[in-house]
Amino acid sequence: MSFHHRHLLGIEGLSASDISLILDTAEKMREVSERPLKKVPALRGKLVINLFFEPSTRTRSSFEIAEKRLSADTMNFSTSTSSVKKGETFLDTVLTLERMRPDCYVMRHGSPGAFHIMFPHTTARLVNAGDGAHEHPTQALLDALTIRENKGGFDGLNVLIVGDIAHPRVVRSNIHLLRTMGANVTVCGPATLMPPHVERLGVEVVTNFEEALRDKDVVMMLRIQLERQRSGLFPSLLEYYKTYGLTRRRLALAREDAIVMHPGPMNRGVEIASDVADGPRSVILDQVENGVAIRMAVLYLLLSGGEDEAAD
Amino acid sequence: MSFHHRHLLGIEGLSASDISLILDTAEKMREVSERPLKKVPALRGKLVINLFFEPSTRTRSSFEIAEKRLSADTMNFSTSTSSVKKGETFLDTVLTLERMRPDCYVMRHGSPGAFHIMFPHTTARLVNAGDGAHEHPTQALLDALTIRENKGGFDGLNVLIVGDIAHPRVVRSNIHLLRTMGANVTVCGPATLMPPHVERLGVEVVTNFEEALRDKDVVMMLRIQLERQRSGLFPSLLEYYKTYGLTRRRLALAREDAIVMHPGPMNRGVEIASDVADGPRSVILDQVENGVAIRMAVLYLLLSGGEDEAAD
Amino acid sequence: MSFHHRHLLGIEGLSASDISLILDTAEKMREVSERPLKKVPALRGKLVINLFFEPSTRTRSSFEIAEKRLSADTMNFSTSTSSVKKGETFLDTVLTLERMRPDCYVMRHGSPGAFHIMFPHTTARLVNAGDGAHEHPTQALLDALTIRENKGGFDGLNVLIVGDIAHPRVVRSNIHLLRTMGANVTVCGPATLMPPHVERLGVEVVTNFEEALRDKDVVMMLRIQLERQRSGLFPSLLEYYKTYGLTRRRLALAREDAIVMHPGPMNRGVEIASDVADGPRSVILDQVENGVAIRMAVLYLLLSGGEDEAAD
Repeated sequence: MSFHHRHLLGIEGLSASDISLILDTAEKMREVSERPLKKVPALRGKLVINLFFEPSTRTRSSFEIAEKRLSADTMNFSTSTSSVKKGETFLDTVLTLERMRPDCYVMRHGSPGAFHIMFPHTTARLVNAGDGAHEHPTQALLDALTIRENKGGFDGLNVLIVGDIAHPRVVRSNIHLLRTMGANVTVCGPATLMPPHVERLGVEVVTNFEEALRDKDVVMMLRIQLERQRSGLFPSLLEYYKTYGLTRRRLALAREDAIVMHPGPMNRGVEIASDVADGPRSVILDQVENGVAIRMAVLYLLLSGGEDEAAD
Repeated sequence: MSFHHRHLLGIEGLSASDISLILDTAEKMREVSERPLKKVPALRGKLVINLFFEPSTRTRSSFEIAEKRLSADTMNFSTSTSSVKKGETFLDTVLTLERMRPDCYVMRHGSPGAFHIMFPHTTARLVNAGDGAHEHPTQALLDALTIRENKGGFDGLNVLIVGDIAHPRVVRSNIHLLRTMGANVTVCGPATLMPPHVERLGVEVVTNFEEALRDKDVVMMLRIQLERQRSGLFPSLLEYYKTYGLTRRRLALAREDAIVMHPGPMNRGVEIASDVADGPRSVILDQVENGVAIRMAVLYLLLSGGEDEAAD
Repeated sequence: MSFHHRHLLGIEGLSASDISLILDTAEKMREVSERPLKKVPALRGKLVINLFFEPSTRTRSSFEIAEKRLSADTMNFSTSTSSVKKGETFLDTVLTLERMRPDCYVMRHGSPGAFHIMFPHTTARLVNAGDGAHEHPTQALLDALTIRENKGGFDGLNVLIVGDIAHPRVVRSNIHLLRTMGANVTVCGPATLMPPHVERLGVEVVTNFEEALRDKDVVMMLRIQLERQRSGLFPSLLEYYKTYGLTRRRLALAREDAIVMHPGPMNRGVEIASDVADGPRSVILDQVENGVAIRMAVLYLLLSGGEDEAAD
């Protein structure tokens, strides 16, 4: 079985078997990171440009390590040092980079439209590393790998996503992925941080956090962006913690073997209590490790086997 | 035939056969970038320090990719993170780097004098990646490669350079190169952006753009630095476009098979109309691709074959 | 003989034979940097994260080159682009990086406590690249290598350290190292830049610079941080130079074959006269070269032979 997509722009458009192929490949890639010699020559002589129009640590580092473990050449291109400041259009920047003949772009951009502008002008593969509030597919995939290795599968699983539902791109990608794989998704958060018509995405909306936790197998806490509080969307961090913070007492309301996830970086004492973050049901750091594995898998599937039959 | 220079500080000092050797080598290098495995081991174990005292995207990225395709080790050293901020002298920075035993420096510095300060203190090869308003030899070489592959050669070719003639280093390097290779060079631009006694460089000066375009084989548009307008050197961007912007109507005044060049980043609607930039006679993106090839060729000629008989 | 430490956090805790082993290994590593092909495959497939919470040029560049000469994969992670700005705790940053499975961290952090926080949570090797005012072991080791190659050994050697004794971490590491190896250490500087009870470290304190210079084999000048003067710790740079600047006339008071050292970057005309810095007794640039060799040696000893019998 091989991967029949040229790009990874989002989870939308991936089939259950596409997702399973990525997760299976990532499991093999994880073994590479466990070896004393953490490197395979799979992408030798391939150039990956990390094109970050918005800052990122975790995601960029994770991709960079994935690229190096696959022996690709990498170039970091970020706006702070770019011609973008000189007034060049986004498309001209892309057209320029394109003629340096990269094999792949890993791009983070504030607007999902950027990928669509880029799309017809590149022969390289595109990996979306987060586009505004729209999609962040490798995050959803690493979450899925973490869920699968803890729960064995997705079918009938009850997943709760808590917090700033309106904003993060990861919510959208996760909802698509989990529903495609047969899980039930509930979302919970302050009304001001809930997108309009969110139930149309096929999720249940529950306002009361404690009620929402009942029967859940997976509790996925989202990061509160502190600037949101400043803009008045919720009264105070303490207030937020009181209502939506995941404490040990609250976690006890979920299933006994429920796992706790967080994409990081965490605000301890805001969206999650420290003892829960560090507790036995937390798989937060496994998510990080799976992040490298997923990115290796995606780059490998797009860049190595793709010559023969790839078609978008 | 081999390259008899230790450094590439400028086009001044290169013979026609030196230039042809670089262009021929670049044509071979361009093939490397077209392979699925874009890498040759030519500079394995060589250290290239990219020493940028002024910001740059295009040039720095292009060199970095060239270095990686030749398997060199690269280190980026830029002023924003350097001891320069702590008050160290330029020479002390150089003497320090020198003892880390680089094989080559690719340097951009605001002052051409910097290379002359450095010169007696280094055993490494120097490549000028742009020095103030003086020289930018790899840009002139990539322009030349682009002209040669479109026009077959330089002899008797009529080249027009348009815009901010007083400022860009690329003008000086291009004039040297084109005249050495037998082309006729005309320059055109506002009087305030024209250096005094420019005709001494062996070029014809024509003030009227439309008149200047007649019989030209190559039209090389220069970037207008927006800060120049702010300092009152020309009244407005719209005014500039009206007088010196390359439109389709104007381009029709040049030879039927004239090519259009621009070093980038472009200000669309200021020095060039969008339909010309993207039109069939534009070779602007070929210039970018040739940039990587020229930088590979220069690094290869200076660093790989040089052991036997190199002498400046 | 092999290196029996998992980490290099400081000179404190190293035996004389540990130090000799590092210096001997560094001498071999220096030869690698003198070859045309400056690279050995010793650390292929190992990931080294350069984790700099404070800016540095010399030290970071030196480590980065050392890592590349040993064929390690490197990732630079600095606070300016990190989640630290988003409010993540130091430990959460470390726990996250840890799950990307690095083999080694080279860390600079303002607080020595950071290493102790990190210590129980990592399976990677730690190299201290400078921790506030506490230790900077690779600097002390490169100083030692420079002294040993000029003086043949340490026993009974008279070493004078001059300047801002209170502040730099390098003083502490150097005093430990030199005393362990049998040298006599004298410190000299303004009373306001002298730590309380400094004589407890086993050094002699002499206030008068000219008196202090007598019979010295090694004169180690420290950098004056210009911000110290601003905070009123000494009256003016000129005043400082008059009292503690190393001039040719003063250097004549030391032993005839005394060597002059400085960790860089230098303030010429403040702590050292230009003709002394560039004079025949200066070994300042040898220190830079030995810096790469020492860092290669430390990384090699920690990461390559360590599988069999390493224990801290």
